[in-house]
Amino acid sequence: MAATSLICRECASTYPLEAQFVCTKCFGPLEVAYAPHPSAGDRDAIRRRIQAGPRSIWRYADFLPLEAGSPVGAGDFSSDGGLPAGGTPLVKADRLARRLGLREVWVKNDAANPTHSFKDRVVAVAAARAKELGFSTLACASTGNLAGAVAAAGAALGLPTYVFIPADLEEQKILSTGVYGANIVTVRGNYDDVNRLCTEIAGEREDWAFVNVNMRPYYAEGSKTLAYEIAEQLGWTAPDRIVAPIASGSLFTKIGKGFQEWIDLDLIDGVGGAAPKVPVMSGAQALGCNPVAAAFEAGQDVCRPVKPDTIAKSLAIGNPADGPYAIELARKTGGTITDVTDDEIKDGIRLLAETTGIFTETAGGVTTATLRKLAESGRIDPQERVVLVITGEGLKTLDVVRGTFEVTEIDPRFEQFENDVESRTEVPV
Amino acid sequence: MAATSLICRECASTYPLEAQFVCTKCFGPLEVAYAPHPSAGDRDAIRRRIQAGPRSIWRYADFLPLEAGSPVGAGDFSSDGGLPAGGTPLVKADRLARRLGLREVWVKNDAANPTHSFKDRVVAVAAARAKELGFSTLACASTGNLAGAVAAAGAALGLPTYVFIPADLEEQKILSTGVYGANIVTVRGNYDDVNRLCTEIAGEREDWAFVNVNMRPYYAEGSKTLAYEIAEQLGWTAPDRIVAPIASGSLFTKIGKGFQEWIDLDLIDGVGGAAPKVPVMSGAQALGCNPVAAAFEAGQDVCRPVKPDTIAKSLAIGNPADGPYAIELARKTGGTITDVTDDEIKDGIRLLAETTGIFTETAGGVTTATLRKLAESGRIDPQERVVLVITGEGLKTLDVVRGTFEVTEIDPRFEQFENDVESRTEVPV
Repeated sequence: MAATSLICRECASTYPLEAQFVCTKCFGPLEVAYAPHPSAGDRDAIRRRIQAGPRSIWRYADFLPLEAGSPVGAGDFSSDGGLPAGGTPLVKADRLARRLGLREVWVKNDAANPTHSFKDRVVAVAAARAKELGFSTLACASTGNLAGAVAAAGAALGLPTYVFIPADLEEQKILSTGVYGANIVTVRGNYDDVNRLCTEIAGEREDWAFVNVNMRPYYAEGSKTLAYEIAEQLGWTAPDRIVAPIASGSLFTKIGKGFQEWIDLDLIDGVGGAAPKVPVMSGAQALGCNPVAAAFEAGQDVCRPVKPDTIAKSLAIGNPADGPYAIELARKTGGTITDVTDDEIKDGIRLLAETTGIFTETAGGVTTATLRKLAESGRIDPQERVVLVITGEGLKTLDVVRGTFEVTEIDPRFEQFENDVESRTEVPV
Repeated sequence: MAATSLICRECASTYPLEAQFVCTKCFGPLEVAYAPHPSAGDRDAIRRRIQAGPRSIWRYADFLPLEAGSPVGAGDFSSDGGLPAGGTPLVKADRLARRLGLREVWVKNDAANPTHSFKDRVVAVAAARAKELGFSTLACASTGNLAGAVAAAGAALGLPTYVFIPADLEEQKILSTGVYGANIVTVRGNYDDVNRLCTEIAGEREDWAFVNVNMRPYYAEGSKTLAYEIAEQLGWTAPDRIVAPIASGSLFTKIGKGFQEWIDLDLIDGVGGAAPKVPVMSGAQALGCNPVAAAFEAGQDVCRPVKPDTIAKSLAIGNPADGPYAIELARKTGGTITDVTDDEIKDGIRLLAETTGIFTETAGGVTTATLRKLAESGRIDPQERVVLVITGEGLKTLDVVRGTFEVTEIDPRFEQFENDVESRTEVPV
């Protein structure tokens, strides 16, 4: 399935596979177009080829827009191929399911990536393509997680990096980016201001690969690997529903694209005699930055930009580039796009941690809270098989956990344990 | 290789496979004894059985002390089996090797575990055995990482947890433990005080499984899986040298035991015609808590307890239970046990991050700084194949990174980028 061109999502004009992200004819966004898979029609051959690959996104190299195929060999080791992104666990969450009155819930834990967010997937593809195109420098506009992923990828590949972030970002994300030796530029403004600045710089600095600006068509393709992994981990089937966060809308729409590609190639089996289909797609936003949810609920096709004000900073994109496509996908699959409050986000983080042992950042709190809201309002059939997409790690937004639990301090004496700990806590039988 | 008994390391008295950790005859530590592997002599059969297992520590269930074998089935998914520990990347670190003048360095990145430290391995084994023995509650004495691992394992398994930690622990580790709903007890004292208190409580509360006190013989066996994984990831060979941190000394000695077990079973191939052997073992400590390094360098067999004073809190055990065994192993393999300063630890964190994209906590800084020291002082043959064991995640000790790099703040205008960023940083060609 070799990449053949960039194609405009709006007017279908095609362009060579270079660093371009906007159609010069209609200003629509570009995405990657592919030739038919060379083994199309022989699904066993395709599956075997995937299974023989490394346990990382590169097992899906045939579906990604690189000339050389996979930048790493077989096995899980990488020397010049960068960090081993993907291959994250899909964990059955029976206790979470019971708490929500659902039959079957799985958690796709993308916090298990090298820098603990799904951004390692997209950066791996963009960085590999940037190397192919001969760029000297990696850069990005980031709400936080992308900064760390780009900085780490640059360190692993030996490329200098520049990351541009809003000045009010969580300190955890700044510290965990700076350690890699990245050049960090904090911008007085919100993410949308940062993004506009980076678009301008990308136009002026021809040897800089901004992974999510001029490299965006390649970058975005990396998110398809989440769909591929989920399908493979569920034994070549699709779940009934995916609950995933929406920031720019790119991750959400590419998950749908990944399932569609594999259904078209007959790689996904139907369940219970039914034909396979793209899962019902439920998008999750924070109330404090809900342009896509608001448009969806109002029945509109385009998103009205908002000024973000939410603890879920990694989702704080007020002017989401792929918002309309996310709305289209949710409608087409019979899905939903809803929002949750900051308090619901904090409760969502606790709910996931207490029932699964998985600690997620605020974005995962948004997703978990959204699943809870859908379950409690009866908008999910309790018999569905649901996959909850957790995109990032709780250690990156620790501040929101502070004050949500109690700690007992004692001297190192047994009597103090008996008096101060056991008397105050519910002692299990 | 079914577990048959607990056996005293000092006087070889045996005991049933229960929750006991000290020999009642000589007060020596107990460890698990096994019957010969049922397929001993047929190494291909053993290797095939391993390769058919899940990509987690449970692929090595035949070498772990559980009655039921693996608590999870094939595949990577766990429902009642707890979090998927192990299966972490071994990454070839060519840029790090070049910086140190070495030929071949690999990084075993155990920060990729579910709660981002190697403790998930030992907790998984201890918790599974605690369930088999019918315990109602998980507990631990912790320098930090263990607390998070126990709290998460309890959440995943649906067991209540109590964690006991020094009151001066990094806040990151308290927050990332409390989120799971664990009962947190901070103790005014150092880790050795916490450990003494927990030993007393374990004697009084018969339904509490303290993973590293009364469950210690089972817990410690989990560390062997690090050796197994390294050998398997290196194509069934052993590296020439392992550099690993020493806190209690348990991890260090169990890595040696893991390699020895597999050599005895003929599972490890020699390199270049040589017979396989246990790697040269280099132990790493912080100067501010160096009882094992000090004893090793002075040619002594026992460790004199110290009061810890170092930023490497996860290694801050002043009275290390397995110190003498760590010394014995280092001597037997021709290895080293050395210490590094807090400044060298911080530099070690940066060195690893900048050359590999892997961000480690202070303990990994100790290990990386130790490797650098050995390389720079010529105590490592530059032709060796070295594996650096990284035991934990940088996000857990972020404070030590603060102030080690610069950030440039600008308004979202291109001229400010040109004036304030490009003029101040080294612009790549």
